[in-house]
Amino acid sequence: MSKISALPPSGFRDFNPEEASARQNLTDLIGRVYLSHGFQRIGMPVMENLSTLHGKGGGADNEKLIFKVLKRGEELNRALAAGEGAELADMGMRFDLTLPLARYYARFREGLPKPFKVFQVGSVWRADRPQKGRYREFVQCDVDIVGAKEIGAEVDCIQAILEVFQAAGLSGVEVHINDRRLLAALRGSATEAQWAEALVALDKLDKVGIEGVEKELNAKLGAVPDGIRRALGAPEIANFESVHSESTGSIAEIVRLLQAAAPDTKIVFNPSLVRGQDYYTGTIFEVRHPELSGSLGGGGRYNRLLEVFGAAETPAFGGSIGFERLFLLLQEKAAAADTSNPQIFIPLLAAELRAPLLALASELRARGIRVDIFPDAAKLKNQFKYADDRKIPYTLLLGGDELARGEAKVKNMAQRSEETIALEPRTQFLDKMETLCKQ
Amino acid sequence: MSKISALPPSGFRDFNPEEASARQNLTDLIGRVYLSHGFQRIGMPVMENLSTLHGKGGGADNEKLIFKVLKRGEELNRALAAGEGAELADMGMRFDLTLPLARYYARFREGLPKPFKVFQVGSVWRADRPQKGRYREFVQCDVDIVGAKEIGAEVDCIQAILEVFQAAGLSGVEVHINDRRLLAALRGSATEAQWAEALVALDKLDKVGIEGVEKELNAKLGAVPDGIRRALGAPEIANFESVHSESTGSIAEIVRLLQAAAPDTKIVFNPSLVRGQDYYTGTIFEVRHPELSGSLGGGGRYNRLLEVFGAAETPAFGGSIGFERLFLLLQEKAAAADTSNPQIFIPLLAAELRAPLLALASELRARGIRVDIFPDAAKLKNQFKYADDRKIPYTLLLGGDELARGEAKVKNMAQRSEETIALEPRTQFLDKMETLCKQ
Repeated sequence: MSKISALPPSGFRDFNPEEASARQNLTDLIGRVYLSHGFQRIGMPVMENLSTLHGKGGGADNEKLIFKVLKRGEELNRALAAGEGAELADMGMRFDLTLPLARYYARFREGLPKPFKVFQVGSVWRADRPQKGRYREFVQCDVDIVGAKEIGAEVDCIQAILEVFQAAGLSGVEVHINDRRLLAALRGSATEAQWAEALVALDKLDKVGIEGVEKELNAKLGAVPDGIRRALGAPEIANFESVHSESTGSIAEIVRLLQAAAPDTKIVFNPSLVRGQDYYTGTIFEVRHPELSGSLGGGGRYNRLLEVFGAAETPAFGGSIGFERLFLLLQEKAAAADTSNPQIFIPLLAAELRAPLLALASELRARGIRVDIFPDAAKLKNQFKYADDRKIPYTLLLGGDELARGEAKVKNMAQRSEETIALEPRTQFLDKMETLCKQ
Repeated sequence: MSKISALPPSGFRDFNPEEASARQNLTDLIGRVYLSHGFQRIGMPVMENLSTLHGKGGGADNEKLIFKVLKRGEELNRALAAGEGAELADMGMRFDLTLPLARYYARFREGLPKPFKVFQVGSVWRADRPQKGRYREFVQCDVDIVGAKEIGAEVDCIQAILEVFQAAGLSGVEVHINDRRLLAALRGSATEAQWAEALVALDKLDKVGIEGVEKELNAKLGAVPDGIRRALGAPEIANFESVHSESTGSIAEIVRLLQAAAPDTKIVFNPSLVRGQDYYTGTIFEVRHPELSGSLGGGGRYNRLLEVFGAAETPAFGGSIGFERLFLLLQEKAAAADTSNPQIFIPLLAAELRAPLLALASELRARGIRVDIFPDAAKLKNQFKYADDRKIPYTLLLGGDELARGEAKVKNMAQRSEETIALEPRTQFLDKMETLCKQ
């Protein structure tokens, strides 16, 4: 057999046990926090019909990044025979979790609770050019409330997201809040097309700074529109009341309630916040962290998106955690205690000891202890190397002699100490091991 | 905007909150059991280069079922220009978890523990014709030991799989065990080609019965080979010792050890078990259940597979749980207690009560209680309908009057009873709610 490359496709990642465990623990934590707020988990396929993925009014940028799935069998033959311009694919990988949610809601809305509080933790795929820190498969963690129009939805979603950061031990996050209606009201005498260009430029503020935004606007529009000047100025909410009081009232109330719920978190009004997705219709927010360029999460109100799939106008608000960035930040900080590594290692000193050692391992597992027993009666040196490599804290040495004497040698691998413990009474032995493993 | 279909692609499924939660709980349980045996979680992309997916010697049947991912940009243009026969796809969706594991092992083997005990819980995709109970996206739960040659690997993996069924509350499973070397030794005077045909026919025993197998063999080979007659006969291991004593010795020892570890489970030698995948080299097993046609899981030893990616011959054994079938069986039995639904519902009686109610909800959540607070100050009737629809067991009624009096009305929704509880001292109130929710 010829040798084949052992690498994953470009832009995709393999996760080693440490990473895979830590990622799993983080998604578990996110699920727990979202559930604690009453959000319900739903599940959807990773691929959707292309007609679904092309359905959204906005999001055109993401549509270009769809990984398409080739048609099969007769359908593929027909498409190939049809020649240039024929669609060769029938499905595509989802590029976000919002569009599938919109489809889900349209499909099942009659039977869903009103409002529908929902979350998803899952992978999405984008055919971006691979580069450092940007992957073609990554995890999103969305939380949405469909069918609620007041700011309670905003506060519930954003608070749940903040609690995830808190539960993960990450301090120092900031929440920036704005409203699309306020940005629209800032348009003034600019034409719609000019204003769209202006917002695209403003959206780059993070990357290019104020000067960069002004430069782009001068180049494209010949001047910096007044509304953009105001958005770039002091973020005093009072200055914007005359522009769109409904927005400023709602922003002020959201800030007040979130601040009460998360007193240690900086919650601010940010009139220059745009958020690229064009389906937002009201509140928008972004979570930032001083040690990170770009955002740790964000979202907004999208009261029109669901119409795409035939639902009547339905108010909806949602947010998402940037899982990959959060994971990176947490990895750079002290890693949490590992709750997945085995706690006890049992070497196999001779093949005929399998039965009693397997029985003992089962009893320990029944106490909630993770026990790893070596599968081969290999050289003891190799078995100990294995336990060392896996950093298993305790080794239970049980040879034929020990078993005959009814005792086990318990080695503490970190302290290189050893203690002999009687196997009977069995309850006492198991209690002792349980106590050891909980230390 | 025109209306777009709200259905997922054919053969794919949406999971409602109840299903999505139950599926999540089952994958969590499987992860816990596998970890308790010292297996390590790894993670890999859902798509692989086509060269990787085509790499396996066997598994040709599954290769035909690959969902292929269309090339993009210039590469696609080049492929289209090259005309007929050019490969239009560069990647494909994984159709199992074993081949990616083989790639992973080849890539990282230098730094991995020896043996490498590993598990994966993840989706795979097959472009099968959709039909009842057969889906194009489904979950597999694999457990493997790479680099161990003795039967300890067999026992460890199969025992872990049996513990999953036990932990999930499923009784009545049976384990059938055979050995590919024994099947090979039964060949007798048949040619290799004839024997391959004979095993394909034998593999259908479950579906077509003994008569069906004999009929196919008579049609294809003109007779039923002696070895097949023996395999279809009495499963007395003693009758097969003369055929291949190494296999029968190993099977007997595996049965003995598993039987000791799982005394209530039927563990049997089954000389007619084939398992379709042609990469198996030794022990093969299958888990069955009387209420199910087909298998609940299975696997085997594959000592040659890793050579595909350039590793030297490496002994390996692995097994897999048929997640979708297990889930179906469990659903048909009594569903487990729901650990994801909210426990307390707080209606919002007036918008100005948001701040105190949010604060109270946070305090309850800090006690580990799942609390759902209504986002809008909607009609109370609608709010109660929501709590009913979601089957939330307790409602905490806190209007302005109740807050002023420092008390809450706690409604038990199932019993339609109501009790007034003082909000202070706060610790006492929270204790009371915690006790209620734990009942």
